[in-house]
Amino acid sequence: MKADEYISGILSGDRVRLAQALTLVESNLDQDRHLADEILNACLSHSGNSQRIAISGAPGVGKSTFIEAYGIELIEQGHRIAVLAIDPSSQNTGGSILGDKTRMQKLSSHEMAFIRPSPAADALGGVAHRTRESILLCEAAGYTKILIETVGVGQSEIAAAHMSDLYMVLVLAGAGDELQGIKRGIIEMADILIVHKADGENIEAAKRARQSYLNALHLYPAKSSGQNVDVRTHSSMNDEGIAGLHNAISKYFEAVQQSGYFEEKRKQQVLHWLDDALMLEIRKKYMKADGKYLKIREKVASGELHPTLAAKLITS
Amino acid sequence: MKADEYISGILSGDRVRLAQALTLVESNLDQDRHLADEILNACLSHSGNSQRIAISGAPGVGKSTFIEAYGIELIEQGHRIAVLAIDPSSQNTGGSILGDKTRMQKLSSHEMAFIRPSPAADALGGVAHRTRESILLCEAAGYTKILIETVGVGQSEIAAAHMSDLYMVLVLAGAGDELQGIKRGIIEMADILIVHKADGENIEAAKRARQSYLNALHLYPAKSSGQNVDVRTHSSMNDEGIAGLHNAISKYFEAVQQSGYFEEKRKQQVLHWLDDALMLEIRKKYMKADGKYLKIREKVASGELHPTLAAKLITS
Repeated sequence: MKADEYISGILSGDRVRLAQALTLVESNLDQDRHLADEILNACLSHSGNSQRIAISGAPGVGKSTFIEAYGIELIEQGHRIAVLAIDPSSQNTGGSILGDKTRMQKLSSHEMAFIRPSPAADALGGVAHRTRESILLCEAAGYTKILIETVGVGQSEIAAAHMSDLYMVLVLAGAGDELQGIKRGIIEMADILIVHKADGENIEAAKRARQSYLNALHLYPAKSSGQNVDVRTHSSMNDEGIAGLHNAISKYFEAVQQSGYFEEKRKQQVLHWLDDALMLEIRKKYMKADGKYLKIREKVASGELHPTLAAKLITS
Repeated sequence: MKADEYISGILSGDRVRLAQALTLVESNLDQDRHLADEILNACLSHSGNSQRIAISGAPGVGKSTFIEAYGIELIEQGHRIAVLAIDPSSQNTGGSILGDKTRMQKLSSHEMAFIRPSPAADALGGVAHRTRESILLCEAAGYTKILIETVGVGQSEIAAAHMSDLYMVLVLAGAGDELQGIKRGIIEMADILIVHKADGENIEAAKRARQSYLNALHLYPAKSSGQNVDVRTHSSMNDEGIAGLHNAISKYFEAVQQSGYFEEKRKQQVLHWLDDALMLEIRKKYMKADGKYLKIREKVASGELHPTLAAKLITS
């Protein structure tokens, strides 16, 4: 199949073509990447017209349930939604979100939703790249809300922040134990902090947790977005909270679009992506060539060679 | 002067040679960099035997006063201390810490202390590199405590965290206003959090601030060091707190050295440095060549070219 077939398929919203193109994007074969680059470049001018929302939280916090409930709500409002994932720990089996897919039953069978598991981790650290490229293709295919699920550990959070417009973090009341899976610093990245599973006997504890987080966040300086962090309790079991959440998200997007922060952030993100892509390209180049990169890296790790000189040797 | 003269001078603890070598390290001239690389590589095996302590805090928090008092104390214990700085905003004049040098009167005139202002910012983003290289040379010259001052804004904090063993953050009681200069996320990077200027009428407010920070930090998961954040009030006006601070720092180093975290972190840091150095090298290479990098970067920023393809074009 030629690039044109993929491109016209994607632009007409064909899910099968989109899925096939994503497979190309995730491939490590040179010929696939070549085709993928052609498709990506053609789709570029058709991308960008979505809200990119990262959803982070430790395992057990109820991300799948949340995405299922929130996703269905968005679809009812007329959106087409894509659920993508970044999970640097995911192997060839498709990773953690594939398991979650079976837990998103309503969403995964809905024609207005497109769910894609995390690309498999590779030695070069390209997982986040593939997800960025997937966002672009989903937007070209007409998806207007991109939900990016992350697992709350490692570099995936920073990566998710670098590719989303709004960063949501899910936590549970009674923190402590439940939060151990989340990396430090993540709470501070939140634009919206959700104390999840605020239902039944949990309601009071969730309210207290919300107040604690509000107090804690009060100690920190203002976010560069100029917006306060919205801390809220939420239940995915009932529909009560969903209107408030919608409101909060809409308010955020209105404010940052009006202030110019939205546009500026997207520009910075794409430049940051370029830096990451450059690093990946360099690694590929020299790892393929003769293992020079890895040999030199080894010497740096063992203290035989200092990094500045090593960088010169690698690129010479 | 040849590399050998610099090297033997540095290894014998000659301050003048050290200062001259740092000037080479900070230079953007090819011939200087060549010489600097030779010196760095020779000094590499003599480096590493120090405690690298980052000291961060917004302007006005009293970093200079703190470093002066703490530095003198370290000298009295028999240490040779080097004070370096990372300030990405510093221009050719030497930047903010030069001003501070006049405020570190006792320390700057002491033969056991070596104070170096931040290297001037350059378009390529190499300030942090130069500071990393400076640490290496200071260690080879026999300095056993490296204090790295940062200004609490921008990328300098992340850079400081990537080159230090222990990260100290200074804050003031009555946060809010005073903290506006500090970037979000910095508090969470702290291994030791110091509520500074806890003297006179400030003592009670400092104690309350300490408790607030303790409460706030309690909500966050454990640090990868396995150590709790030490939150303490401190005054640089009297000597009372200094013994407790020493204790806290010693305890930290003992714990992480025993657990192996210290060594592992240094190894990760040097590999991270390699990645940064590679990026800098690539930028230099293509910015020098024909402005190809900048032209392509422009196209990425404006959305004409997607980053993955752009990275290939730059490196092809």
